[in-house]
Amino acid sequence: MRYEEFTIEGRNAVIEAYRAGRPIDRLFLLDGCQDGPVLTVKREAQKRGTPIKYVSRERLDQLSATGKHQGVIAYGAAYEYAQVEDILQAARDKGEPPFLFLLDNIEDPHNLGAIIRTANLAGAHGVIVPKNRAAGLTATVAKTSAGALNFTPVARVTNLVQTMEALKKEGLWFVCADMGGTRMYELDLTGPVGLVIGSEGDGVGKLVKKNCDLVASIPMKGDIDSLNASVAAGVLAYEIVRQRLKG
Amino acid sequence: MRYEEFTIEGRNAVIEAYRAGRPIDRLFLLDGCQDGPVLTVKREAQKRGTPIKYVSRERLDQLSATGKHQGVIAYGAAYEYAQVEDILQAARDKGEPPFLFLLDNIEDPHNLGAIIRTANLAGAHGVIVPKNRAAGLTATVAKTSAGALNFTPVARVTNLVQTMEALKKEGLWFVCADMGGTRMYELDLTGPVGLVIGSEGDGVGKLVKKNCDLVASIPMKGDIDSLNASVAAGVLAYEIVRQRLKG
Repeated sequence: MRYEEFTIEGRNAVIEAYRAGRPIDRLFLLDGCQDGPVLTVKREAQKRGTPIKYVSRERLDQLSATGKHQGVIAYGAAYEYAQVEDILQAARDKGEPPFLFLLDNIEDPHNLGAIIRTANLAGAHGVIVPKNRAAGLTATVAKTSAGALNFTPVARVTNLVQTMEALKKEGLWFVCADMGGTRMYELDLTGPVGLVIGSEGDGVGKLVKKNCDLVASIPMKGDIDSLNASVAAGVLAYEIVRQRLKG
Repeated sequence: MRYEEFTIEGRNAVIEAYRAGRPIDRLFLLDGCQDGPVLTVKREAQKRGTPIKYVSRERLDQLSATGKHQGVIAYGAAYEYAQVEDILQAARDKGEPPFLFLLDNIEDPHNLGAIIRTANLAGAHGVIVPKNRAAGLTATVAKTSAGALNFTPVARVTNLVQTMEALKKEGLWFVCADMGGTRMYELDLTGPVGLVIGSEGDGVGKLVKKNCDLVASIPMKGDIDSLNASVAAGVLAYEIVRQRLKG
């Protein structure tokens, strides 16, 4: 997945972006390169927790829009990430039990945007994504979120399972959508809840699923395997909405 | 929206495609061109009911992948359309009250594919799209439908309102999703039903809405206007599923 519109290329451009506090989603560095400016970029990236990928010159040439990457290409985020605490605070401010979306490696920016849009309209207080594999908050995500990114905070965490464990101490419990679960209509989905959505290809990761309190299944009458990830998120989120409205 | 993978360019290529019975979604002809072969293409298109657009040479040059369009570019459909009667027959064969999706000008092929996927899994018997403005059954639609296009019939009709009137005589009633409707949980959505989904930008058209028996609203707690069209279709379709399972 590439987002040329937010690609920053070249040593000085990337250092400047860091120093201006611009959010960087991902950094590609020429493997084995030990030049001073490249090490400076690396230090800035480590300070800010940007995931770094060490790649070949050929890969950088492929990724480059300008052809002048000097061994350094960064993908800039269109939006700032929030902290998990901001999301919990938003719930407290509204006097509502927390309702969070956790996205286990949604890599398609159209799906990510549509899910943030759904999270906003379903009344969720925020969205949590893992740092390493998920799509960043790029212009495509912002566009498909239809403005929801301006309202619904998105937090990026290093380890989704650790975050779930920490949130359980705050009283949250977690439900994921997966085959073989209990039909969602038969579950009690009220209270402080984290809705876990797996990736299109692989579903919810094993460890993440193990940390879910409930596995909900969406009834499937058809011939194929699964709903689109953003549709599944919407269907399950609105079952939560329905139960909360009743309660 | 372009689908280069199914673009057929040039007079002979398009005539051959028609003679081979290949489904053509849309035809672009050079405005004012009266050459024999172009008139032959036009006759074939009219015989088969292909929507024709007369465009400038500049527009054709833009659309052309090969640069050799000779005044004729056709967009081929990846899949064959079904007839509305096939869809009703599918419901009869299963001994179920018909459950149809009607898409009022869904132009985005990703949304169309995701909706066909949802229709399949929600147990709908088919999808009806209008001929003129909707996205065709292109490779992109097939891909985002995740195989559902192989199972769920899609019929293309000239006039959605007339089709709705004919289906009412078959006992169907229609519900559309729109703001200002009754909250979907409070409606009886069982029985032979057509679920009408409007386009992303404009919602459900006036005349189509007038012909709907019910207007359902999805509860919206957030700051933005509307869900993604395929998510809205999924949420409402699964409210129908929930009510049908209870009944």
